[in-house]
Amino acid sequence: MKKVIIVGAGFAGLNAAKLLGNKKGIEVTVIDRKNHHLFQPLLYQVAMAGLSPAEIAIPIRSLLSRYKNIRVLKGLVEGVDFEKRQVIVDCGLFSYDYLILACGAKHTYFGNNEWEEHAPGLKTIEQATEIRRRVLNALEEAERENDPQRQKQLLTFVIVGAGPTGVELAGAIGEMSRYTLARDFRNIDPKLTRIILVEAGPRILPAFSEKLSSQATRNLEKLGVQAWTSSYVTHVDKNGVQIGKERIQAATVLWAAGVESASIGKQLGFPLDPQGRILVSDDMSVEGHSEVFVAGDQAHFSDQDGKMLPGIAPVAMQQGKFLAKNILREIQGKARLSFKYRDKGQMAAIGRNRAIAEVGTFQFHGFFAWILWLTIHIYYLTGFKNRLFVIVQWAIAHLSFHKGARLIINKEWRFYEKTPKPVQLDKKTRSPKPVAQMVH
Amino acid sequence: MKKVIIVGAGFAGLNAAKLLGNKKGIEVTVIDRKNHHLFQPLLYQVAMAGLSPAEIAIPIRSLLSRYKNIRVLKGLVEGVDFEKRQVIVDCGLFSYDYLILACGAKHTYFGNNEWEEHAPGLKTIEQATEIRRRVLNALEEAERENDPQRQKQLLTFVIVGAGPTGVELAGAIGEMSRYTLARDFRNIDPKLTRIILVEAGPRILPAFSEKLSSQATRNLEKLGVQAWTSSYVTHVDKNGVQIGKERIQAATVLWAAGVESASIGKQLGFPLDPQGRILVSDDMSVEGHSEVFVAGDQAHFSDQDGKMLPGIAPVAMQQGKFLAKNILREIQGKARLSFKYRDKGQMAAIGRNRAIAEVGTFQFHGFFAWILWLTIHIYYLTGFKNRLFVIVQWAIAHLSFHKGARLIINKEWRFYEKTPKPVQLDKKTRSPKPVAQMVH
Repeated sequence: MKKVIIVGAGFAGLNAAKLLGNKKGIEVTVIDRKNHHLFQPLLYQVAMAGLSPAEIAIPIRSLLSRYKNIRVLKGLVEGVDFEKRQVIVDCGLFSYDYLILACGAKHTYFGNNEWEEHAPGLKTIEQATEIRRRVLNALEEAERENDPQRQKQLLTFVIVGAGPTGVELAGAIGEMSRYTLARDFRNIDPKLTRIILVEAGPRILPAFSEKLSSQATRNLEKLGVQAWTSSYVTHVDKNGVQIGKERIQAATVLWAAGVESASIGKQLGFPLDPQGRILVSDDMSVEGHSEVFVAGDQAHFSDQDGKMLPGIAPVAMQQGKFLAKNILREIQGKARLSFKYRDKGQMAAIGRNRAIAEVGTFQFHGFFAWILWLTIHIYYLTGFKNRLFVIVQWAIAHLSFHKGARLIINKEWRFYEKTPKPVQLDKKTRSPKPVAQMVH
Repeated sequence: MKKVIIVGAGFAGLNAAKLLGNKKGIEVTVIDRKNHHLFQPLLYQVAMAGLSPAEIAIPIRSLLSRYKNIRVLKGLVEGVDFEKRQVIVDCGLFSYDYLILACGAKHTYFGNNEWEEHAPGLKTIEQATEIRRRVLNALEEAERENDPQRQKQLLTFVIVGAGPTGVELAGAIGEMSRYTLARDFRNIDPKLTRIILVEAGPRILPAFSEKLSSQATRNLEKLGVQAWTSSYVTHVDKNGVQIGKERIQAATVLWAAGVESASIGKQLGFPLDPQGRILVSDDMSVEGHSEVFVAGDQAHFSDQDGKMLPGIAPVAMQQGKFLAKNILREIQGKARLSFKYRDKGQMAAIGRNRAIAEVGTFQFHGFFAWILWLTIHIYYLTGFKNRLFVIVQWAIAHLSFHKGARLIINKEWRFYEKTPKPVQLDKKTRSPKPVAQMVH
């Protein structure tokens, strides 16, 4: 019985596990710190209240319950003993014959971690919920506000980083303020919303062709999004951002700028690239340990031309499947193969009905590209229930211009605090505060 | 132009607002601390991962956006100046001609607020999410645990209070452990789950007939729920509860025992009943202020026989509509009417396909009562989208025995802490901790 341990149930880990599921002679343990697999390409929709968390996050247990040889553990990997071939998890030691590390990536502030408080990234459901809370609270506060300066600040949104995530976030905020919220507010004109997309490079979506990149800029402008290229954020605080010499007062700043590999890579002492990805050989194994593999965003794999594969879902999926097949081959006594990426193209959505897409030498933009984008994303959403739900919810959202999940959910769930404060009430107004406020 | 202020957008406030919507000569301001109306009768389904928050919580703005004379404010009411007829909100003063207080109720620990930490109540989405987190985390931990004592504690669930909420929670936990989770875990037998429903009175569901109450007890037993009647909880801590002389080690304790009216009632100085409800006269107005009304769970209204109306959704809905009609009558120069409650019966679900229902002298239980329960709850779920979604989601959940929203969402969204701790790694295992754990 060969023991395979997979750390991380993202696209790479999950695809590896599924192919190893119900295979004879193999026992699989999938370890993840979360209880759910996350369909990250649609995470911006949760942040922008278009989808509910449960529509794109699915319990790992449910996804793998049909495979009797797979055990799922919610746990934190603390280290690996490569000599004894044991993974050290916070609940015990787990032995392996093959180890797949697929721990993914997190966002980075390039050494300014204190910015996180004021500019959340978008990698987890928790962060998406936080972004939703901030965006919706800013609008609610703007509705109550009578000071035009403060109202302007509340209606200013800065998105740092113009890769697909930044563009999709900016487009969704534009849509939300232009159409969806326009009829719900009385005291603010949502069209006054200012959305600034900041990019250090010379153009947005640098991974796409120049033509599509400029098309995307045009589409974003129609939604009220200004793209500031060749611009660096030099400071972030709770009132806004500093971009070179310009100060922007903004209540909401979102971070989509940098990516750094999961920190376990550094800890394990493997050779890394500057972003912390583990360098892997042709068969995705690490130096000196042919039984240890790395896949997905955590791996630095260079293709035949020496070009590094990007950190996107199709790469992770193909690598996960490849590793499972190679392990099965080796167990059957066959030689390992080398990983080859089949590039199926890339795409990004811009607002509610536009997208750009590159497939080989073909380039699309506009509504047709959006239909392509929609079809592919729904197709890959794992699990029948979620696929159906996303179709229904999106159909309704499109027909009604309503946002489906515009909830502000607080972090605090308790009513009672440990030490209730004694409150002095004003005798006339029965209010705990002196009253000297504007009458509406 | 008459100004109406409605505080609280629960069943009472929302129904009042809708009837006043788009009526000439009336300006309505709806103030709520949350941005959403909550369909509380289905909140236990969110806690038990059957539904997503957005399926039963709907933004108040969306619900009222079609009424041009209604303004919605997310704000906290801090007091009322009855002389000047002004409501003091945390963002300013708001004048009224008519004031409707419909702030609802919270759960109470009868003076033991420190129990809340260990035994969350179920009144808000935040609490439902917390309960879901605790129940699912207990199961995940049980799966990792090898100590049988600790595993037993993790699989023990205590629900305090056997009104409809307590019964519905207990039934849902029973279902979850019996059927839904049975196939997803490898290291625990979910049937070992112990579910104890604690009730101080002599029988569960005291508001129902004795026959239905004993029927419900039988149904709960089939789901593995033990009903402990005439039992008092005397202590709650993080490891369990004390019930008289018996100590129960339980990782999860849920509180459905006491209800107390929103604290603003006490603050405003009106005559209250022992649960903090404001005593109201025949037209739901308060003593000495014929332009101030109280409705829903915050009001203590006695019917013709001197019996107080219970704190349930139908009462709140009828009172909200009644108040809107009375205000419209008065503006048109007609005399006010007195409120009369039309009792449409009561019901409670027990697990996945059973319920009890009382309609007048008719009593139902079993599957037919459940169909009745389901139909009525879906019918009243406000808004087409949500109605459709709940039907689809429940249909799928029933066909597949899957739970739709079994997500553990953490409260912390940040990756980076302010002061990263320096970690000493073991040289061989590359782990920050000394390794002396059980090998699996």
